Amino acid sequence: MGKELLNVKTQYYTFAAPPSEMILKSGEKIGPVTLAYETYGTLNKDKSNAILVLHALSGDAHAAGFHDGDKKSGWWDNMIGPNKAFDTNKYFVICSNVIGGCKGSTGPSSVNPKTGTPYGLQFPIVTVEDMVKAQKHLIDHLGITKLLNVVGGSMGGMQALQWTVSFPEAVSSAIVIAASVRHTAQQIAFNEVARQAIMADPDWQGGDYYGKTVPSRGLSVARMIGHITYMSKDSMEEKFGRKLKGKKSLTYDFSSDFEVEGYLRHQGDSFVQRFDANSWLYISKALDYFNLAERGNLVSVLSKTKASFLIISFTSDWLYPSEQSKEIVKALKISGKDVTDIEINSNYGHDAFLVEIEGQSKIIPPYLERIFKRTK
Amino acid sequence: MGKELLNVKTQYYTFAAPPSEMILKSGEKIGPVTLAYETYGTLNKDKSNAILVLHALSGDAHAAGFHDGDKKSGWWDNMIGPNKAFDTNKYFVICSNVIGGCKGSTGPSSVNPKTGTPYGLQFPIVTVEDMVKAQKHLIDHLGITKLLNVVGGSMGGMQALQWTVSFPEAVSSAIVIAASVRHTAQQIAFNEVARQAIMADPDWQGGDYYGKTVPSRGLSVARMIGHITYMSKDSMEEKFGRKLKGKKSLTYDFSSDFEVEGYLRHQGDSFVQRFDANSWLYISKALDYFNLAERGNLVSVLSKTKASFLIISFTSDWLYPSEQSKEIVKALKISGKDVTDIEINSNYGHDAFLVEIEGQSKIIPPYLERIFKRTK
Repeated sequence: MGKELLNVKTQYYTFAAPPSEMILKSGEKIGPVTLAYETYGTLNKDKSNAILVLHALSGDAHAAGFHDGDKKSGWWDNMIGPNKAFDTNKYFVICSNVIGGCKGSTGPSSVNPKTGTPYGLQFPIVTVEDMVKAQKHLIDHLGITKLLNVVGGSMGGMQALQWTVSFPEAVSSAIVIAASVRHTAQQIAFNEVARQAIMADPDWQGGDYYGKTVPSRGLSVARMIGHITYMSKDSMEEKFGRKLKGKKSLTYDFSSDFEVEGYLRHQGDSFVQRFDANSWLYISKALDYFNLAERGNLVSVLSKTKASFLIISFTSDWLYPSEQSKEIVKALKISGKDVTDIEINSNYGHDAFLVEIEGQSKIIPPYLERIFKRTK
Repeated sequence: MGKELLNVKTQYYTFAAPPSEMILKSGEKIGPVTLAYETYGTLNKDKSNAILVLHALSGDAHAAGFHDGDKKSGWWDNMIGPNKAFDTNKYFVICSNVIGGCKGSTGPSSVNPKTGTPYGLQFPIVTVEDMVKAQKHLIDHLGITKLLNVVGGSMGGMQALQWTVSFPEAVSSAIVIAASVRHTAQQIAFNEVARQAIMADPDWQGGDYYGKTVPSRGLSVARMIGHITYMSKDSMEEKFGRKLKGKKSLTYDFSSDFEVEGYLRHQGDSFVQRFDANSWLYISKALDYFNLAERGNLVSVLSKTKASFLIISFTSDWLYPSEQSKEIVKALKISGKDVTDIEINSNYGHDAFLVEIEGQSKIIPPYLERIFKRTK
């Protein structure tokens, strides 16, 4: 095991995209745009060792190491660092937050320069394509012409896929974990119910709640719905089963009888401390809009990419099941691309991309090594 | 096909259980208790042809036929009637509502005789055992000593199982469809999130909303969550996929872009017109509390039953998956009981018990015929 990355700092890059505003997929314009990001390791002289890490719905730029004084590390710390799967002794790792978010990047909670007040629902709809387009400005700013790798799980995997399609010349390889080229009706449905939970909260106020009471009850319910879909049925059963919460017998009331009830309530309550409800709406909508094959069939779209691919899925993931990864793999093979795929045995459901460290750490380093050698 | 049952009427039986109040599993007392019920067909002279139909969470006593002037039939009309699976030319079919409900039976929206106002959360917690205990009063009132069959899907299946355990002498056979002997952590989790959605609605007011604004937003979200779990991923995909709702292209806003979004919103909105939020809380809680093997292992509990069993499950039901039915079948076989089981191929998910008419109609009539002959 390597040393921990200490004194990590989140950085911010603000760009006024030419001709001063970034044009979004919807046709709307926005600017200036700030992206929060972090970097770990050192960019080599020929700038050939850069890896861009992309996060999931509720993630942020703080992927690894410790902020000064923090006891909690970044969300993928066990994957990124010296001698870890993304070895910062070898690679320069960048993690970028997304446009639409609430973790230092421009999003609905940012101040609209035209009004001087937070955007709220005046913020334009953003898509995964827009997230990637904004990140390209950041990568250009860092002076990197070609990324060795783009990688992410869940929505991060969608961004990685989009990078290979939007900027085929700028990506040598992509690691796409527990992702999909488009949402099914059921995936849209789960997101829609969570959005409805937020919008049903009277404190939501049509998105205009900044400086007032935040819609914490609605966001909490949204998070609870999400949490059920992130865990597998079996992992939930192993962790909680029908265990009672701090009591020996049923209480016959509406308090938390079962541990799983208390766990969900805790997950909901703690989420509202760290996430903005409007960002949840915007980012979940971006997920639903995402459709890599929107402008043609998947094979023809992927044919234009120039990256190598590593596609990883997990056996017990029912939110982004392995079939969705296999669809990507099949289309890449038909397109004649260099594609490696693996379905990792895991009981952790969709959360596996965050916690199945051993399995992913076996596959990823030799894959990166192979790609890195090829670029030399 | 047979004739439709016309001019069906819901009836009400009110009993003051000795010693005037019914003692619930929690130890609380309640009384008097009213149960809404309907009957179809004719009870024969020796009262040996009675079948008790039990409904699911949001069901009611109106299982078959048409109320005078109604265009919509009961919820299992395609299964109950002349020459249908439950043939009312042969059998006397009773459908009983549950205690805790809001469809004419005593529940949280009923007036508490001690206060003269609706119970709200003063209503005691009821369990599936209590539902069945109350139904036994109804069956006694109808003069039936032994039911030919008890049958139900989902929560109805749990009640059917409970009947065989609570009143082994009063049941010749049970048809248990898409049910379980206890909820897993995931099943509890889905119910808990739905409850939290209701309780997060400020209009819920701690359950004291009768005569005021009902918590329709919370109940609507609860229903939407339920609906996702009732359909299979594939049936949702076939029905909706990524089809847009009444438009040719994405609108890039938070209106319903996708048909599945509109469908869920409609399901939520229409549900609040016909169901009481507090009843949803009480009945979902009863489901979570249900544990047939609470007082021993499942085999020992089922050993004391005296009924024959038909256990039906559906391949695509992920809310009450076939494994849960197989657990019941295995325990019944170990107990040496007469058990028939079938897993019906269906794409409809948990909803299959309501819509897979052909499959169920092939299995059920010969099964009932066999049991009926044996009781002669």
